[in-house]
Amino acid sequence: MRIAIYGYGNLGKGVESAVQAADDAELVGIFTRRDPSALRPATDTPVYSANEIENFKDKIDVLIICGGSATDLPKMTPSLAEMFSVVDSFDTHAEIPNHYRRVDEAARKGGYLALISAGWDPGMFSLNRLYAASILPNGKDYTFWGRGVSQGHSDAIRRIEGVADARQYTVPVPEALESVRNGEMPELTTREKHRRECFVVAEEGADLVRIENEIKTMPNYFADYDTTVTFITQEELDREHKGIPHGGFVIRTGTTGPENRTRHTIEYSLKLDSNPEFTASVLVAFARAVCRMAGRGETGARTVFDIAPIDLSPLPREEVIKHML
Amino acid sequence: MRIAIYGYGNLGKGVESAVQAADDAELVGIFTRRDPSALRPATDTPVYSANEIENFKDKIDVLIICGGSATDLPKMTPSLAEMFSVVDSFDTHAEIPNHYRRVDEAARKGGYLALISAGWDPGMFSLNRLYAASILPNGKDYTFWGRGVSQGHSDAIRRIEGVADARQYTVPVPEALESVRNGEMPELTTREKHRRECFVVAEEGADLVRIENEIKTMPNYFADYDTTVTFITQEELDREHKGIPHGGFVIRTGTTGPENRTRHTIEYSLKLDSNPEFTASVLVAFARAVCRMAGRGETGARTVFDIAPIDLSPLPREEVIKHML
Repeated sequence: MRIAIYGYGNLGKGVESAVQAADDAELVGIFTRRDPSALRPATDTPVYSANEIENFKDKIDVLIICGGSATDLPKMTPSLAEMFSVVDSFDTHAEIPNHYRRVDEAARKGGYLALISAGWDPGMFSLNRLYAASILPNGKDYTFWGRGVSQGHSDAIRRIEGVADARQYTVPVPEALESVRNGEMPELTTREKHRRECFVVAEEGADLVRIENEIKTMPNYFADYDTTVTFITQEELDREHKGIPHGGFVIRTGTTGPENRTRHTIEYSLKLDSNPEFTASVLVAFARAVCRMAGRGETGARTVFDIAPIDLSPLPREEVIKHML
Repeated sequence: MRIAIYGYGNLGKGVESAVQAADDAELVGIFTRRDPSALRPATDTPVYSANEIENFKDKIDVLIICGGSATDLPKMTPSLAEMFSVVDSFDTHAEIPNHYRRVDEAARKGGYLALISAGWDPGMFSLNRLYAASILPNGKDYTFWGRGVSQGHSDAIRRIEGVADARQYTVPVPEALESVRNGEMPELTTREKHRRECFVVAEEGADLVRIENEIKTMPNYFADYDTTVTFITQEELDREHKGIPHGGFVIRTGTTGPENRTRHTIEYSLKLDSNPEFTASVLVAFARAVCRMAGRGETGARTVFDIAPIDLSPLPREEVIKHML
């Protein structure tokens, strides 16, 4: 399959690397809205201006769109789905139905297939919520995120006056995790599920008390959480907090049998040293399915829920049945 | 959907209960090779002789076949797949390709759809092996079973002279689990992955030393494992070991990024108070997908790999996208 990347940030770089790991995939180009000559890809993949994408209509099987969910993808995915089969990682949960509708319309108009919201959440976590809920209808599921870096929360801290740099970790509360695993099916508040750890580099002479207070009282981002703020030097931030790890847990406990007396726990967890590289690996696996399904004549928008798992594997069907079933 | 059960052992009883928990399913009958009047179902579902099944061709959407993999399913599933869309839990891993072939031929002949080898392993564990391997091609996966009761191993002990009753637990070795989780990708022998705990009730006057020795040296079943044998009374066995718990772990660790320096861990685990009740719950969810796919005109054999997850859910597609993605 011939893959191309649209957008070359952390996620695009991850896709570039994930395509190298897929024996059946070839990377035909990287498209950027920046000056193409300014990009230094890790491989010898040619770089083109995003304006040239229309000239590649017959040269790309699946275009992986690596833009941000806030402003890029709501425009990019519908417009590109008219010209290519595409995969994106749109992750603004509340906006997914609208995004789906717009992409579906565009993809049908162009006669292409478009998979939206792939990655790990939405993505693999969503799949695990669906599988578990379908198997154990009498139950309750919980999603915990972390320990991992939240880019959005780190950015929010950096916007505070006097902050030079910052890194925020989302951390599941161990007691909540244990209670869920034990099948206690607790009702958990926002504060009881996660805490937030902030590592902040202040500008010289900045008012640390005010900064800490502004962080801890910031609505939506921090006010509803137990938040710790630790001031460190830029050197320490660069040394100890340069990675983008993430992960989390999807746990469903439920009951079966006469009078629902029998208890079961289903748990799926991820521990990722790099959030964008793992997300990119998921995108490439789902690009494989999109390539196959488009080849079978399917058009319109799809989600991870619509993909038969067999289509994700590069291995022949007989081998998958023989060795993985 | 109209479901029927073929075979009323522990698994059949679990299906009976799981159908009650599914709002969109109706249980139209239980079919048995025993005398129907001898069965006492937990619900007021009518019981019929297995010989009558042909008369129900237009009254059942999906028949869930609850027989054993050793001798029942290899005959039952192909013969019933000529008359009904079916689901089974065939779990003799080495024989799955042959079983698939036979069932596929029968189902195509009759124009029905047949899902084989659903449950948790094969089943949910297989799905997790496939998803994880497709996402992280540079990696290695491990399956651990337990702590849980192995019926086959318990039976093997009961066949030893002087043994009145027995219960065998398969237990993952904690050090092996930890090494895998840490991404060490160890090469593990059979002995290093699991140990076996046996609780044995001896007949009066039996030679305990000989029984223990016969268990520990039994080829295939115990000789390759660290095995402990504990003699207990029938009362203790009935009191402390009457359940059929099981579970286990599918863990894949792999690397991504430049020079494969970034590490990730994907883990799926089950903790089941009742192996047959959970397996039954999986069968009912997949029966839903079979019902829908057969309604779309699909015929032949399928595995869990072929099922788009959306088809497992009783909820409307829009609601699943809105609330679970």
